[in-house]
Amino acid sequence: MIQAAILGASGYTGAELVRILAGHSGFEVSVVSGDSKSGLSFGEVYPSLKHLNLPKLCSVEDINFGKLDVVFCALPHTKSAHIIKDLPKHIKVIDLSADFRLTDVNKYEEWYGMKHPAPNLQIQAVYGLTEFYRSEIKNSRIVAGTGCNAATGMYPLIPLLQENLIDPEEIIINLATGVSGAGRKAKEEIIYCEVSEGYTPYNVSRHRHLAEFDQEFSKAAGKPVRVTFTPHLLPQNRGILATIYVKGDLQRIQNSLEKRYMDEEFINVMSLNTLISTRHVRGSNFCHIGVCESSKKDVVVIFSSLDNLIKGSSGQAIQNANLLFGLEENSGLVATPLFP
Amino acid sequence: MIQAAILGASGYTGAELVRILAGHSGFEVSVVSGDSKSGLSFGEVYPSLKHLNLPKLCSVEDINFGKLDVVFCALPHTKSAHIIKDLPKHIKVIDLSADFRLTDVNKYEEWYGMKHPAPNLQIQAVYGLTEFYRSEIKNSRIVAGTGCNAATGMYPLIPLLQENLIDPEEIIINLATGVSGAGRKAKEEIIYCEVSEGYTPYNVSRHRHLAEFDQEFSKAAGKPVRVTFTPHLLPQNRGILATIYVKGDLQRIQNSLEKRYMDEEFINVMSLNTLISTRHVRGSNFCHIGVCESSKKDVVVIFSSLDNLIKGSSGQAIQNANLLFGLEENSGLVATPLFP
Amino acid sequence: MIQAAILGASGYTGAELVRILAGHSGFEVSVVSGDSKSGLSFGEVYPSLKHLNLPKLCSVEDINFGKLDVVFCALPHTKSAHIIKDLPKHIKVIDLSADFRLTDVNKYEEWYGMKHPAPNLQIQAVYGLTEFYRSEIKNSRIVAGTGCNAATGMYPLIPLLQENLIDPEEIIINLATGVSGAGRKAKEEIIYCEVSEGYTPYNVSRHRHLAEFDQEFSKAAGKPVRVTFTPHLLPQNRGILATIYVKGDLQRIQNSLEKRYMDEEFINVMSLNTLISTRHVRGSNFCHIGVCESSKKDVVVIFSSLDNLIKGSSGQAIQNANLLFGLEENSGLVATPLFP
Amino acid sequence: MIQAAILGASGYTGAELVRILAGHSGFEVSVVSGDSKSGLSFGEVYPSLKHLNLPKLCSVEDINFGKLDVVFCALPHTKSAHIIKDLPKHIKVIDLSADFRLTDVNKYEEWYGMKHPAPNLQIQAVYGLTEFYRSEIKNSRIVAGTGCNAATGMYPLIPLLQENLIDPEEIIINLATGVSGAGRKAKEEIIYCEVSEGYTPYNVSRHRHLAEFDQEFSKAAGKPVRVTFTPHLLPQNRGILATIYVKGDLQRIQNSLEKRYMDEEFINVMSLNTLISTRHVRGSNFCHIGVCESSKKDVVVIFSSLDNLIKGSSGQAIQNANLLFGLEENSGLVATPLFP
Repeated sequence: MIQAAILGASGYTGAELVRILAGHSGFEVSVVSGDSKSGLSFGEVYPSLKHLNLPKLCSVEDINFGKLDVVFCALPHTKSAHIIKDLPKHIKVIDLSADFRLTDVNKYEEWYGMKHPAPNLQIQAVYGLTEFYRSEIKNSRIVAGTGCNAATGMYPLIPLLQENLIDPEEIIINLATGVSGAGRKAKEEIIYCEVSEGYTPYNVSRHRHLAEFDQEFSKAAGKPVRVTFTPHLLPQNRGILATIYVKGDLQRIQNSLEKRYMDEEFINVMSLNTLISTRHVRGSNFCHIGVCESSKKDVVVIFSSLDNLIKGSSGQAIQNANLLFGLEENSGLVATPLFP
Repeated sequence: MIQAAILGASGYTGAELVRILAGHSGFEVSVVSGDSKSGLSFGEVYPSLKHLNLPKLCSVEDINFGKLDVVFCALPHTKSAHIIKDLPKHIKVIDLSADFRLTDVNKYEEWYGMKHPAPNLQIQAVYGLTEFYRSEIKNSRIVAGTGCNAATGMYPLIPLLQENLIDPEEIIINLATGVSGAGRKAKEEIIYCEVSEGYTPYNVSRHRHLAEFDQEFSKAAGKPVRVTFTPHLLPQNRGILATIYVKGDLQRIQNSLEKRYMDEEFINVMSLNTLISTRHVRGSNFCHIGVCESSKKDVVVIFSSLDNLIKGSSGQAIQNANLLFGLEENSGLVATPLFP
Repeated sequence: MIQAAILGASGYTGAELVRILAGHSGFEVSVVSGDSKSGLSFGEVYPSLKHLNLPKLCSVEDINFGKLDVVFCALPHTKSAHIIKDLPKHIKVIDLSADFRLTDVNKYEEWYGMKHPAPNLQIQAVYGLTEFYRSEIKNSRIVAGTGCNAATGMYPLIPLLQENLIDPEEIIINLATGVSGAGRKAKEEIIYCEVSEGYTPYNVSRHRHLAEFDQEFSKAAGKPVRVTFTPHLLPQNRGILATIYVKGDLQRIQNSLEKRYMDEEFINVMSLNTLISTRHVRGSNFCHIGVCESSKKDVVVIFSSLDNLIKGSSGQAIQNANLLFGLEENSGLVATPLFP
Repeated sequence: MIQAAILGASGYTGAELVRILAGHSGFEVSVVSGDSKSGLSFGEVYPSLKHLNLPKLCSVEDINFGKLDVVFCALPHTKSAHIIKDLPKHIKVIDLSADFRLTDVNKYEEWYGMKHPAPNLQIQAVYGLTEFYRSEIKNSRIVAGTGCNAATGMYPLIPLLQENLIDPEEIIINLATGVSGAGRKAKEEIIYCEVSEGYTPYNVSRHRHLAEFDQEFSKAAGKPVRVTFTPHLLPQNRGILATIYVKGDLQRIQNSLEKRYMDEEFINVMSLNTLISTRHVRGSNFCHIGVCESSKKDVVVIFSSLDNLIKGSSGQAIQNANLLFGLEENSGLVATPLFP
């Protein structure tokens, strides 16, 4: 069994890593850290996982990294890079923070407001959008998990930009996301009464996942691309749905996406004009994509939906870890969506 | 007291008319009809209104129209026009259905799939977007309530099209709405488990409120305008928020809307870059508008939000009825939003 | 106009006081304090109240109490009493905290774990269960608002204990409450994901509102009464529903409650075997009571429901303030429930 | 592979059977029926299961029962028995309806208002509360799945009644349940707006699951037992939590339940005074039980919670099917709860 540590295991993405890995035949959860909750049993912090035989939550300082094979790092950005840069070199790293997502460390400084904490490591890191960086991931030591919103937008758009099927100047990503993406740390804006019965835009002019869109879309198009990106908070736990407006030919877009994802287990392109919903991917590693005729001749609407805690973060992380260690790529990830 | 009948009072917009009129000093709710529930007391059908002294629900056939001054018609389309066309001429009519919204009866046939049931009456009807048709409404007999989605999109867009401040070819209205807009009639797609934890697009290529957009936007721009319009269903009871993408100058758009609505009690234009939410208009007759810089230079994002059951239908209806009868326009409509 | 200050106005009960008083013809909201948010406009903290002409939030220290007539104190317990004891004597006080609820200051120490901060004032305070202490309230200076759970249980039970219609040894109050009762201060257990899809008991062996039950039920029965009280948290914003199990005669219980509340505007006793719901009192000052036959011969189930932020706290407070100042008791409180 | 048909597969319990069996190594879903939706692909009816390779929905009349080994019958009561009585004798049956739950067919008539449709078969049927009827189930042909509310109440109470640790005259089961228990058939009372922000008792004096309580509790106690049972509807999809009031000794109750369920994988008795929640069993086959001190000396509160669609129906059904066919009892049922 591959020995895994999960740092930041008391947060939602951390707990989701624990939950999925506990049912995975290749990994053993041997260390879980959660600084503010160190000393507690995992079942006290997540009663839903009480029945599992898990180690107690510890502090990062107390971890013996010698016996570990892989570290999943679900810590806040900058804190993550600081810990990763001191890890023994035999350890492979899946980072779920934003620290290694941006190839250009100057962009990191621009978007995150501080110098990159480990610029030398950035060079080794691969962007973890599995279906596009599979071979690089297999040979890497550090995989940077993508932003959950970023992944939702990229699955439909990268192939279309690569094939030059849409106008790169006219892309709008209108996105709505469940609350779990904001984490488990208490803040006024995510308490129940502030979210319920409310649908609310946030970070409209500048969301950090935009930096990932800039990077990957420009690469795909072979020239600088900047999209309009408007995220909204939804009164629900899980799920992201992006409503993407593009200019291009409906049928060619459909054909291109169908072909691109024909052999991808986790990316499901629906038949033309199928409407999708967040509730149909909840609890799974799937991304659903639907291409639809809009109410205006020259505009095509593409819907893309995934579970932010799974395909948008922890499921993606495990998919990448499977690649890193030569396991079946779908190991531990075949759970069917839970509806209702 | 002005004697009012509410037809279709057992539905959500009907009950909302009853609720607001019961606290209105100018109207008396003297008749409530609800065919499938006729014979029941109103408090049995809406226990929240049990304390009010209301008539029993009756059938439309049993109504003595002689003593009535106004009929609020919250019936399904076509059924509504059929009843309205036979009403005594002394009765003023506020229709909440779609039957009299489209000036051109051919458009009605195109969008609703049947001949208009009362083409002669269409000529007398005024489109009920109060802030734009105030003087016509005062002098009319039939006011056609707007679609709730339509109103949400029109408040910010009509002034900008009238003043030629945005490109009419490049308007996208991405809209999300609470479930109460779908009415109280049981259908699988609105049962709790089908809505909860789901954010789902619907009627993407062809929503009937688009016909209203076509009509009013073309009129405002002085030439045919067709927008991209994508509605989504939200897991919440009330509230619509439109996220509108336009091409124009940020500050001029802000100035124009501030000026246009400076003296309008119910339309609140927020200061530049303010983010708004459905939960801040719930239970009120307000429409909140926020103009924001987007993540892309040439795109401006405008948010518009209202309570679909009030400013989007029943509150609007009463605002128009106040005009019809020469009452203060805000009578009965000053309730503050209920949050949380 | 009676000049009112609302201390702790940035919390939910404070904001609800502001909302209701803003539509009240007898009071003027002249001061609003909210320490952590002092300096902000009220509309920034509650965008739903942005349209009102309200003073900025200030610190308690900065208030000039000289020109005030009444202080509504929506502060945490102990902090509340500390401020109230130094107020000028001409000011009347409505306290929404727990500080003056318990007649016996030793009980305060027992339940709140500290010496009562103002034992001399306790003597002047009246327990604010309006329908039972009306005459005392009219003549008092300090009214102690009841616990919201406490009020829900007391409305049906006090009359029955007074009339000796139920066995005081066999009372069980099973209660469920919306999240707004926990306030607006961020805590992990009230963030959206921790509440949604969860129904969870809390404070099962010892909830502080039990001290109020002890006091009032013992007084009503003329001997010590202790009930079984089990609160649960609901995934909804507002509303409390108590399911109360008693031993007594069904019809006599019904008759007694009907008679007791016949002339009470805000306490509605439904006809026998009517099932009630939190959603039918939301946004109103009503308490609904339903007496029902249970599945077991000797047990009667009584349901009692109110909106915790209104009849359970801020509406009750204003009802009491109306009495204090000789206004109509229902002034400002006639809003009809908002459903859906 | 054991060939299974699921009748009524378009309902929630039917679809949950499909979902779980699709990931089960011992069964093949070879037939799915859903009369009103026959002819549709399963993915059209449940897009969350679109990726599975499933047969189309058919009518019961079109099923060739010859090649089947087991029928899971998720049909309405009476319809279920009518079909089951004509099945070939080689087919084993797991019935999720109420038709075979009551040993005494007179009781069926009393509670369901009609003659039992297959009294001869009733003799062969075993009540499917796995942990209490394991050996009978192994040797039976027809297993009657329990009511979901019934199972929630029985797990903690049967052992205590068997051991005479509680007063059988003084049992109160206050229960709250998510909406999915009401099925997928559209009815006004389960549409989103009627459920959201509402907590509502139902069937207070007479819920059909009471007949199961009567039967099993009387059997356990060795004398007639009737409990007070009050179900409530919750604004959430899944989950039941029973709050059970009993008279007995706290520690002896805890010890008894711990001992009884020590070797039961799916029944987790928490340590004394642990509070449990529906959200911690969601998506799993677990039942959580917590024994707690109440606020009154002689009353003990016991909480019991399970996922109504899994341990309360479809998971239980598969657990019983595993027994029927000699498979590992937990096959297909080891999924960890999904939280948040």
